[in-house]
Amino acid sequence: MLLDVPVSATDVVVLGGGVIGAACAWRLARRGLRVILVDPAPGSGASGAAAGMLAPVSEVQPGEEPLLRLGCHAAQGYPDFVRELERVSGVVTGYRRCGTLAVALTADDRARLAENRRLQAGLGLTVEALTGRRCRDLEPMLDPGVSAGTLIPDDHQVDPRRLLEALRIAATAAGVVTVQGSGTPERVDEALAGVRLDSGTLVRAPRVVLATGAWSRSVVPAVRPVKGQILRLRMPAGEHVLRRTVRAVVHGRDVYLVPRENGELVVGATSEDVGLDQRVTAGAVHDLLRDAQALVPAVSELELTGTTARCRPGTPDNLPLIGPSVVPGLTLATGHHRNGVLLCAVTADAVAAALIDGEVPEGPVRACDPRRPGPARSADIVTTGRDTAAAATAGRR
Amino acid sequence: MLLDVPVSATDVVVLGGGVIGAACAWRLARRGLRVILVDPAPGSGASGAAAGMLAPVSEVQPGEEPLLRLGCHAAQGYPDFVRELERVSGVVTGYRRCGTLAVALTADDRARLAENRRLQAGLGLTVEALTGRRCRDLEPMLDPGVSAGTLIPDDHQVDPRRLLEALRIAATAAGVVTVQGSGTPERVDEALAGVRLDSGTLVRAPRVVLATGAWSRSVVPAVRPVKGQILRLRMPAGEHVLRRTVRAVVHGRDVYLVPRENGELVVGATSEDVGLDQRVTAGAVHDLLRDAQALVPAVSELELTGTTARCRPGTPDNLPLIGPSVVPGLTLATGHHRNGVLLCAVTADAVAAALIDGEVPEGPVRACDPRRPGPARSADIVTTGRDTAAAATAGRR
Repeated sequence: MLLDVPVSATDVVVLGGGVIGAACAWRLARRGLRVILVDPAPGSGASGAAAGMLAPVSEVQPGEEPLLRLGCHAAQGYPDFVRELERVSGVVTGYRRCGTLAVALTADDRARLAENRRLQAGLGLTVEALTGRRCRDLEPMLDPGVSAGTLIPDDHQVDPRRLLEALRIAATAAGVVTVQGSGTPERVDEALAGVRLDSGTLVRAPRVVLATGAWSRSVVPAVRPVKGQILRLRMPAGEHVLRRTVRAVVHGRDVYLVPRENGELVVGATSEDVGLDQRVTAGAVHDLLRDAQALVPAVSELELTGTTARCRPGTPDNLPLIGPSVVPGLTLATGHHRNGVLLCAVTADAVAAALIDGEVPEGPVRACDPRRPGPARSADIVTTGRDTAAAATAGRR
Repeated sequence: MLLDVPVSATDVVVLGGGVIGAACAWRLARRGLRVILVDPAPGSGASGAAAGMLAPVSEVQPGEEPLLRLGCHAAQGYPDFVRELERVSGVVTGYRRCGTLAVALTADDRARLAENRRLQAGLGLTVEALTGRRCRDLEPMLDPGVSAGTLIPDDHQVDPRRLLEALRIAATAAGVVTVQGSGTPERVDEALAGVRLDSGTLVRAPRVVLATGAWSRSVVPAVRPVKGQILRLRMPAGEHVLRRTVRAVVHGRDVYLVPRENGELVVGATSEDVGLDQRVTAGAVHDLLRDAQALVPAVSELELTGTTARCRPGTPDNLPLIGPSVVPGLTLATGHHRNGVLLCAVTADAVAAALIDGEVPEGPVRACDPRRPGPARSADIVTTGRDTAAAATAGRR
C-alpha cells in the first residue's frame, strides 16, 4: 500500500535523525519550512556513541587546516547554540568548557606534541606546553610515565545523548514531524520526488536533506563507515579521577578519556575500516582499557558500565559534505566523521541557508561543498527512481 | 504489619533461590515436604554468572582431596540428575560431555600440569598428557606458544542459567511456593521460629535451609564473598573457535574459556577478596581479555556480549557447608565457592536426607558437615530473634 503524502504538505524531508539531521530539521522548521524527519531509531548511529569532545584544536592534523578552521568557527558559536537549544528544549546538555590535556609517554610522543603546538600556534590558537610534573599537578592520577603535555584550554565538551534529546524536543516544538522508518531519496526523471520508505510509502517533497551518516554511502559512494568503539566507566561519587579531557597516542593509537560532571568517564575510540559493523569486539575493548590504564592506572578500579560500537561517516579528504549535491533538490549533510557533534549547528545553518537563501554563506563551511573537485569524488550520487519514458512501456515496479 | 503464616502450613523455608536453594527446594518438595522458597531475585547471585564447568578433575589442588572426591561423586551422578530434571521441567540444560584441555605456555606451567597429572592419576582419574602440537590438533585456534597440555575427557558442562530455570520450574511443579524477598532465620529462645522477611513478615516454619551463597555470611561468619567476574563472547554462527573447555594459568591467574553449543563463549574468572561487590571493573575485564587472547588470539575478533560480576561463597577450607548446623532446625547449604553448579544435586540429596531421614548419608558429602572441627570455624552461627523472658519486660521490638 502506498500512502503518498500530498506534495503541498511538506517542504523538505530530512533523512536521518542523529545530531546532524535533528539540527537541520530544527533549523529548517525554525525558518518556516514544513519538515518531516525520517529515522528508524534516532540515536542508534554515531551520535549515540560520541564522546562529545568539542576539540577542533587538539585533533588538528597537518594538511587539515580547512577542517580546523571550520571546527574553530563551530566551537566559537557553540555557547550561543547551546544556550538557545537548552532554553527551547528545557534539556541541560552537559556543555562545559573544561579544556583538553594532550600528554606524551615517549620521546616520539613529545616530538609529535611539539610539532602540533607549532601548527596550532601558527594558526593563532591558544596552547600551552607543560612538563610532565605540571601535567600531574593538573591531573594527579596521570601515570608517572607522562613526560610532557599540551594544555588546550579552549576545548569544550557536551553530552551527545542529551544534546540529541534536546535537538529532538526543539525540532518537535518547532513543528517537525518525525516518521519512524528508513528510506532513500527517489527521483522521477531528473526531479526529486521525495523519500521512498522501506515500507513502500513515498513521502513526497521537492527537497531532501541526506543526513544518514555512515549509511549515506548508499547514496554517496564517497562516504565510508569508520567503526568506532567506546567504553563508559563510572567514577566514584565525589571522586574526580580526571577533571578535564586527557588524550594521547598510546601504542600508535589515539585514546582519550572524557570525564563528565555526572561521574561518567568515556574512553574512546577505535577507528576501524570494517564496513557497517556495530558489534563490540573483545580486542577493541581490551586495547582501549589497556591504553587508558597506561595513561591513568586508577582506571582499572573503575566500574565498566557500557560498551558501544557505531560507525562514523568518513570521507576521502576528511571534510564533511555540506550543501547542494549535483542532484537538484538533494542537499547533503553527511561525512562528518569524528566531528558531527561539534559541527551540527554550523551544518544546520549552512543547509538552511542553501535551501532557503539559495546559497551557503561565506566562511569555512564552503570548503565542504559536496561538488568540490579533488580526490573526494563526493559529487558522485546514486539515486533510485524511474524514468517516465521507460515506465510508460515497462510499467511501475 | 505482620502476616504470620500458620506453622502448620509450612514444613521448611529455603532461604536463597540460586541453584543450591532451588535444587534443595525441589528435592524437599519431591519428598513430600511443604516448602517455601524465599529469594529477592532468583539468579542474581553467583548462579547467574557461573560458567557451568563440571570439572572436579581439572580443578583439583593438592590438599583438596575431600573436595575432589565429592566433586567426582557429583559428576558421576550428573547425567541422571539432568535427565530427570529435563524431563520434569521440559527445559534443555545444555548439559554435555566435552572434556577439558588444560594447557601450558611456560616451563613453569608444564611442571604444574605434570604435577597435577600425578595427583589426578594417583586418584584413579583419567588424564592424558599432550604435546603442544597435539593440543593444536585438538584445538587449532590455540596460540602457537602453547607447549603442552592435559586432556581431561570426563569433564562436563551445563548452562547454569538454563539449569536454574529448569530447577525453578521443577520446584514449582512439585509444589514449592516462591516468596519474593530477603530474610533471615529467626529464633524464639532456643527454637527456630522461621524466616523474618525484611518487609517484617515472619514466615513460620520449624525448619530453615540456608542457601544464600555469599550473603549467608550474615548468619555464618565463616563464609566470605569471593568476587568473580566473567565475560560472554559470541562465536560466529557455524564457526567453532573452540570445541571444548580450555584452561590455563596465565600471568599467575586461572583463566578458562567455555564454548557452548549455542555459540556463546564464556571467559572467566577473577577471584577477588573485596567483599560483597557486584560491580564490573575495567581492570578485571582487561585482564580476562588479555589472558584469553594469550591462549586463543582469535578471541580478539569475537563480539563481547556481556560482562558480569558476582560473589561466590568461600569457606576457610574450601569445602562447602552442607547439613545440620549447631542451631536446631537450621540446615546449611552454602559455601560452595566455585562448585555450586556441580554440587547442587548432591547437596539437595544430603539436605533432604538430613531433614527427612535424620542424617546425611554415608559418602564424601559427610566431609562438609558444618559442625566439623578445624580452621573453618563454620560452627559459629549468628541468629537473630528474641528471648521470651526479656520480651516479657522489654516488649517485642
